Amino acid sequence: MSAVRILVTGAGGMVGRKLVQSLERDGSVGGQPIDAVLGVDAIAAPGVEVVDIAAPGAAEGLLGSRPDVIFHLAGIVSGEAETDFEKGYRVNFDGSRLLLDAIRLIGNGYRPRFVFTSTIAVFGAPFPESIGDEFLTAPLTSYGTQKAMTELLLADYTRRGFLDGIGLRLPTICVRPGAANLAASGFFSNIIREPLAGRAAVLPVPDDVRHWHASPRAAVGFLLHAAALDGRLLGDRRTLTMPGLSVTVAEQIEALRVAAGDEAVRLIRREPDEAIMRIVAGWPRRFDARRAEELGFRAETDFAQIIRVHLEDELGG
Amino acid sequence: MSAVRILVTGAGGMVGRKLVQSLERDGSVGGQPIDAVLGVDAIAAPGVEVVDIAAPGAAEGLLGSRPDVIFHLAGIVSGEAETDFEKGYRVNFDGSRLLLDAIRLIGNGYRPRFVFTSTIAVFGAPFPESIGDEFLTAPLTSYGTQKAMTELLLADYTRRGFLDGIGLRLPTICVRPGAANLAASGFFSNIIREPLAGRAAVLPVPDDVRHWHASPRAAVGFLLHAAALDGRLLGDRRTLTMPGLSVTVAEQIEALRVAAGDEAVRLIRREPDEAIMRIVAGWPRRFDARRAEELGFRAETDFAQIIRVHLEDELGG
Repeated sequence: MSAVRILVTGAGGMVGRKLVQSLERDGSVGGQPIDAVLGVDAIAAPGVEVVDIAAPGAAEGLLGSRPDVIFHLAGIVSGEAETDFEKGYRVNFDGSRLLLDAIRLIGNGYRPRFVFTSTIAVFGAPFPESIGDEFLTAPLTSYGTQKAMTELLLADYTRRGFLDGIGLRLPTICVRPGAANLAASGFFSNIIREPLAGRAAVLPVPDDVRHWHASPRAAVGFLLHAAALDGRLLGDRRTLTMPGLSVTVAEQIEALRVAAGDEAVRLIRREPDEAIMRIVAGWPRRFDARRAEELGFRAETDFAQIIRVHLEDELGG
Repeated sequence: MSAVRILVTGAGGMVGRKLVQSLERDGSVGGQPIDAVLGVDAIAAPGVEVVDIAAPGAAEGLLGSRPDVIFHLAGIVSGEAETDFEKGYRVNFDGSRLLLDAIRLIGNGYRPRFVFTSTIAVFGAPFPESIGDEFLTAPLTSYGTQKAMTELLLADYTRRGFLDGIGLRLPTICVRPGAANLAASGFFSNIIREPLAGRAAVLPVPDDVRHWHASPRAAVGFLLHAAALDGRLLGDRRTLTMPGLSVTVAEQIEALRVAAGDEAVRLIRREPDEAIMRIVAGWPRRFDARRAEELGFRAETDFAQIIRVHLEDELGG
């Protein structure tokens, strides 16, 4: 059992940070001891090397140590990819492609496990009530388009034997800790995180909006599970919709009430925002994530659990 | 009603040539008179300008006259894209992207109708008995991957308002006239065309192989119909699976027998080829092309018609 070298792109992001912490705490992945973890990000952060993966030569540099497992989390979020068209394609698509191509060009039997974080934004309305594993990817954002294109590359590069890829379509991560980012989905977390900390939060959509969630802890669990999975079990379809929890905003608020009382709920201010409503209307609400469940991926099964994870992991219980 | 300028990439290919002939014969498209047709291809052919669309600056050059309708047919075929990995991505994906980006960068209200020929090879096994309009694109070839990625770009660039795109997933074109190309699907045509001309043909798969066909005449009809279609009728899903005919090789051969007798059928030599069988096993066999049918696209409804089109269009009836 040889020690594995790990590369994490987007290591300064919320999930990336938690992933690196988890790897360092465990000291192993899939039962194999970890030799080294290299975390990189476009933005400076503690313990992270600053690398723009879309810059010429950057991808080759990251592969100098021939990492055995690559977690490719780097990317700009949906809101920013919609605002800055060229940056979105450059980072989210070209950056991913450059990394995949740099692996391909090493050759010589180098065939790392490549875990790619995709998104449920590869899907676009109209949807069936529950989206199965064979539903088409018809994104309604540039972000979703860039991720769907990368999923296609991942499958082809795996089929060709250049790498051993697994893509994970993450649910919306809730409750996101820290400051809000530019993702249009931010309010799903804001309305829980802010009231729990005694601060006001804005709800820009109606209470009956339904969405698909998993905690940051579940997301890290997906990534670690994917790193250790036997790739042959996936066949040629290399990207999996991750399990999650389908709840309405009203159900989120009810779980907040149980956890923190009416006082917390009163901190939520309803300010309908047409732009956000329009984006959210094009998002999926529920999945039947059968393939991922059969492969052992697990998420929370009620929103109280998601709040409990936030209290434990971010607020010291 | 102003005269329209037309650009055809891949104009030297089999379908491209027939499309240009048809446009020049009609003198109009969608009821509008044609001002000029510019046909380009990577390979020299009569009446065609030689352009490598993936070369720097080539796309900008093609748009100098601001064509109102662009038929983007250029591409290398499935067999070649599988053999030459880098060329496939360069021509089929990067070439398409450069053209789309050159349109985007013109801006200033320039928003041409962009008709893109995609392929049923964007789908990969396992399939349902009949593939509907919401089935996932999971290609099992690099060719299919490159086309599926371009479909995604087409939809996003249309949604963004850079162009008015329509993608057509063509059935396998049968009967292809002329010499065989590198497409693995070539035998579907060879077993009809060659015996009709008194020549032997090789059948590399079993008689019960089922596939999805349309004639070259139907393919040109799809392209012309797409050029004139109101893009708003498509909504955000810009690529349509074209109607076609689902038949087995045995049914093809039976239609050949009716058209040209036992003598013709005896010219088919069975030489099973494992490589071709493996590729074909990953191809779809039947579609429910409801969206395209509702939008007025029409194909042949029996294989005798497909043979008749070949006799009329290629062999003077």
